[in-house]
Amino acid sequence: MAPLSLRPETLELHLRDPFRISRGVQTVARPVLAHIADGEREGVGEAAPSSFYGETGDTVRACLALFGDLLGDDPFAFQRIIDAMDSRIRLNPAAKAAVECALHDLAGKRLGMPVYRLFGLDPERTPQTSFTIGIAEPEEMARKAAAANDYPILKVKVGTADDAARLRAIREVRPDARIRVDANAAWVTPRVAARAIEQLARFDLQFVEQPLAPGDPDDLRWLRQHSPLPIFADESCVTAADVHRLAGAVDGVVVKLAKCGGLRAALLQIQAANMHGMQVMIGCMIESSVGITAAAHLTPLVEFADLDGNLLVSDDPFRGVQVKDGKLVLPDAPGLGVERVVPPSEASVAHAGVETP
Amino acid sequence: MAPLSLRPETLELHLRDPFRISRGVQTVARPVLAHIADGEREGVGEAAPSSFYGETGDTVRACLALFGDLLGDDPFAFQRIIDAMDSRIRLNPAAKAAVECALHDLAGKRLGMPVYRLFGLDPERTPQTSFTIGIAEPEEMARKAAAANDYPILKVKVGTADDAARLRAIREVRPDARIRVDANAAWVTPRVAARAIEQLARFDLQFVEQPLAPGDPDDLRWLRQHSPLPIFADESCVTAADVHRLAGAVDGVVVKLAKCGGLRAALLQIQAANMHGMQVMIGCMIESSVGITAAAHLTPLVEFADLDGNLLVSDDPFRGVQVKDGKLVLPDAPGLGVERVVPPSEASVAHAGVETP
Repeated sequence: MAPLSLRPETLELHLRDPFRISRGVQTVARPVLAHIADGEREGVGEAAPSSFYGETGDTVRACLALFGDLLGDDPFAFQRIIDAMDSRIRLNPAAKAAVECALHDLAGKRLGMPVYRLFGLDPERTPQTSFTIGIAEPEEMARKAAAANDYPILKVKVGTADDAARLRAIREVRPDARIRVDANAAWVTPRVAARAIEQLARFDLQFVEQPLAPGDPDDLRWLRQHSPLPIFADESCVTAADVHRLAGAVDGVVVKLAKCGGLRAALLQIQAANMHGMQVMIGCMIESSVGITAAAHLTPLVEFADLDGNLLVSDDPFRGVQVKDGKLVLPDAPGLGVERVVPPSEASVAHAGVETP
Repeated sequence: MAPLSLRPETLELHLRDPFRISRGVQTVARPVLAHIADGEREGVGEAAPSSFYGETGDTVRACLALFGDLLGDDPFAFQRIIDAMDSRIRLNPAAKAAVECALHDLAGKRLGMPVYRLFGLDPERTPQTSFTIGIAEPEEMARKAAAANDYPILKVKVGTADDAARLRAIREVRPDARIRVDANAAWVTPRVAARAIEQLARFDLQFVEQPLAPGDPDDLRWLRQHSPLPIFADESCVTAADVHRLAGAVDGVVVKLAKCGGLRAALLQIQAANMHGMQVMIGCMIESSVGITAAAHLTPLVEFADLDGNLLVSDDPFRGVQVKDGKLVLPDAPGLGVERVVPPSEASVAHAGVETP
């Protein structure tokens, strides 16, 4: 077989609406794709870098340039390739996830098998995904919640001065929805978080994601003991070691490919969480259907999914996992099963320069 | 595809020499093979039942009879099939391992890929295996240790009235060998074990396997603190939950397919041990090259291997993993890569009756 070659491509995705969470607002996302070819077939994976986890488009492209010559000629050599990437540079999980997912896509295409089947998973067991309502004025959030009527589960971003007004407005238009909330580390102390959660609990919520900034697990442990709602860790939980560290301190963890470094690292996190009796939600960044579909292939293993990053953008160039009555429907085409529906723009293919923020 | 069919076959393997450990002696082993066919190809897996873990040949055959009609038509449907077996009957890991390994063999054959590659593992990373010296008179053990000169690592069974005499005799003929010892739960209290280990440590040993009967992890924890040698748990460590329970109490764990239920369950144990910073040895029962080779496919993930069960029998009907200068050499044929070198006997094929102990 010919040596594997790696080609980066930067996408520019536009949010349908400005996407606001407790620590900022986003109108555009520029994930970086890794295309890995063997001379006959090509696999694709996506890096959705986040400066919160130490990555930007530029660092991802710099990492992909480092990884191009260590791939060898066998897309199944995951142990060797992952170790080689880790030896070349530590951290940078989104960049590594792009390569690792592209290898799985290529491996699946060679075998004519979808990735979920490579992992032995049952595609019937996918959970429903939530649909995310970003922070806005209460009426605006209610309007979006009503428009998202196809999604039986909503994830509502909180951490504003008056979250209760927002949830009340949403509950009025979506009385039967299952609703989870995500504070993205907004509350400054465990006591502040406990009071906020106490206020929100009357709106019949599933759980609260990342109430506090990452820090001492004992803060989460205290909060969990004083919270009427289950607590999930997202920003606090990056690696399998973090899952272990958080055992007993939270009810569940949020696993994302861009945080942990790929499908196999995500499996390790899920298994660590299972061992500790913790629940798992597979989440995402704002990304195209490439990254969302890759993550979706692992969802038969978990209770909760929040895989709507592609639904929030207006110009996703790929088509992959679908959503039917809220439930994730995995493609059964080989590999990730994503197909390109909008050809690459000249800009994205030629992109080699500096990220414009 | 045609529905998968399951056919059991009982082997009769004769030990080259009676194999004595601290709790008994064995001259014959009767593992049960599971052959799984899809109408075109066939996969094979091995159950090496042990009454210590609640299984005999009869219980394995009874379980295989339960599993025949739940396989469906897809050998890659591991999640569904493993859950279905667990729903039908709890425990019985050797029987489940036979099915799970046969599915991996069949899946690999369909894809034309060796099992290690299905798991993305690097075949160069296999460790050396130890060769086991059963309990006998000191001169006899020394004779066997000298004869095993091709194996740079010996595992010596201990738990006799005078282990020191035996190790002294072995050290005289194999001064440079790496030697680990296995007490198979022989020592009756942590204090007795600590004294015994103190006596043996002067023979320059790698570690001590299973000093105590399975029980309170705190006994192992105390022993570990009072032992000059690392402590590994075998009989104490059956599932991934056991690994977790033993964290901090031992230095390493012994993973065996017949204890945990198959390759995927073994992966979970290995990953749990890694997470806790514990070392792992992949071990075996007295079994044919089918079961030994299956276990060997996972050894690129671990530090230590003790995969010599097939080497101790005189009439292994299969050929699979080889040993070169002590190092395990994985076959690169599709699936497990084992081939039958002695055709099935009429007795083994027709076997459907009661195990003769």
